[in-house]
Amino acid sequence: MRDVAENAQLALLLEVSGTPKPGNVDRHHEYDDLRFEHFMAGAVGALDGLREAADGASVGRAFRVAIEGMSHQSGGNTQFGALLMLTPLVRAAASDQLDSEGTRAVVEATTVEDACDFYRAFDHVDVAVDEPPEGMDALDVRRGSDAVDTLRERELTLSDVMERSADRDGVAAEWVNGFDRSFEAATWLANGAGPVTDRASRVFLRLLAEEPDAFVMTRNGEAAAEEATERAQAVLVGREDADDLAAEFVERDINPGTTADLTAAALFIALERGLEV
Amino acid sequence: MRDVAENAQLALLLEVSGTPKPGNVDRHHEYDDLRFEHFMAGAVGALDGLREAADGASVGRAFRVAIEGMSHQSGGNTQFGALLMLTPLVRAAASDQLDSEGTRAVVEATTVEDACDFYRAFDHVDVAVDEPPEGMDALDVRRGSDAVDTLRERELTLSDVMERSADRDGVAAEWVNGFDRSFEAATWLANGAGPVTDRASRVFLRLLAEEPDAFVMTRNGEAAAEEATERAQAVLVGREDADDLAAEFVERDINPGTTADLTAAALFIALERGLEV
Repeated sequence: MRDVAENAQLALLLEVSGTPKPGNVDRHHEYDDLRFEHFMAGAVGALDGLREAADGASVGRAFRVAIEGMSHQSGGNTQFGALLMLTPLVRAAASDQLDSEGTRAVVEATTVEDACDFYRAFDHVDVAVDEPPEGMDALDVRRGSDAVDTLRERELTLSDVMERSADRDGVAAEWVNGFDRSFEAATWLANGAGPVTDRASRVFLRLLAEEPDAFVMTRNGEAAAEEATERAQAVLVGREDADDLAAEFVERDINPGTTADLTAAALFIALERGLEV
Repeated sequence: MRDVAENAQLALLLEVSGTPKPGNVDRHHEYDDLRFEHFMAGAVGALDGLREAADGASVGRAFRVAIEGMSHQSGGNTQFGALLMLTPLVRAAASDQLDSEGTRAVVEATTVEDACDFYRAFDHVDVAVDEPPEGMDALDVRRGSDAVDTLRERELTLSDVMERSADRDGVAAEWVNGFDRSFEAATWLANGAGPVTDRASRVFLRLLAEEPDAFVMTRNGEAAAEEATERAQAVLVGREDADDLAAEFVERDINPGTTADLTAAALFIALERGLEV
């Protein structure tokens, strides 16, 4: 059967295949400059890094390799956040401890070198991020590898870096909280019915309905993030049509990318636990 | 950038992402028991075999490994024919001779052991094939590995096996004809405009319009195969709508699988020659 790295690659492919996921690129929706084919190429390119993670490379290095591979397509950032979720999960799975405790152990074991590699990954792709907090300019992730000296001076591990972003970045929040939302969403996938891509769409909507998306917050502002969550709730209770909402959000460029990252993580966990495709 | 095996995997993913490809599973069309997600999992599983081909394993062995990996999903045969096209093309590309002459050299170099591995691949998946010709029962591919002794007694190489099927199997025809249609279709892809998946859809229609699909011939009969070709011609001249035709063919279970295999081969060649995604 598929090994750990292959399940992670498949999770990336199934995530973008699930439709509708309002505002995301999915099988039926794309943006002119960020298309379905870019996600296919991103998933192909990411495998080497995922395999390094499965084979015991440090999380930072494996992530950087995955991002470099992902970036070999012309759409730009396709799966940065998803890979930031998957890399520690793959490490935990490869150690036969794919649970909250296992991921906490992976996160706690990260080093300053992992943080440096995390920053280096930003050299390969433009990622939409918030302005850094007051006094943190030297650690703006957009500095990429230029921030390495500062990381070393301040002796910041990748876990430290994630802690500092956890209040405004949904992926970082998972890193510090034992991937709780990802594990919960994986049980929704396992308990769902029908094709896996339909389950992925449903899980995406539940996650979005549960909490405002951090990526929308960054790119479109708080009001848009709250609206996205309210309208996902409306879809779940049948007051709105998911396909209509998807068309509208693509039109308005409201792309709940963090929720997609969580969905990819949940798919990986579910596949590792035996979800059949 | 992507290596040869990765381009082959990406070709599989882009092929099924191209839409509409009337009658095929594609991004917007699927069958209840053969779904888009099965093709994603098939492409993930096939990579190991494609990598073996790129690394110099014998074509038969690499193909068998690719099919075994592809089969780890519940949809059944997703990419058997596409992988039968891609394996020798990957070998030719890995030898820096991805052209008609290079593929002929790969095909001519196949051995009896390659033929045995080809038959063994049928153990992993049910493939819709014609009844064998008179007197060829012992070499019915559906016998799978049970045919190995006969292959050895008759000293048949994989090239010999393909020659015997070339008149009724479009993939085998490419094997014996230097992959001429695949290379031609690759130039159509390269010269096309717009997203790669749109080009793939167009190339599929041109290939189908050019020649009746052997897989439709086998499963639905000659009249259906001729109709499919005529209606693809009608789409190309604007007399029919491709999306309507796609819906109708899925409904009637007319699936031009050989044409999809050719499209995957053409995508691989075009990617190797620098087609940007």
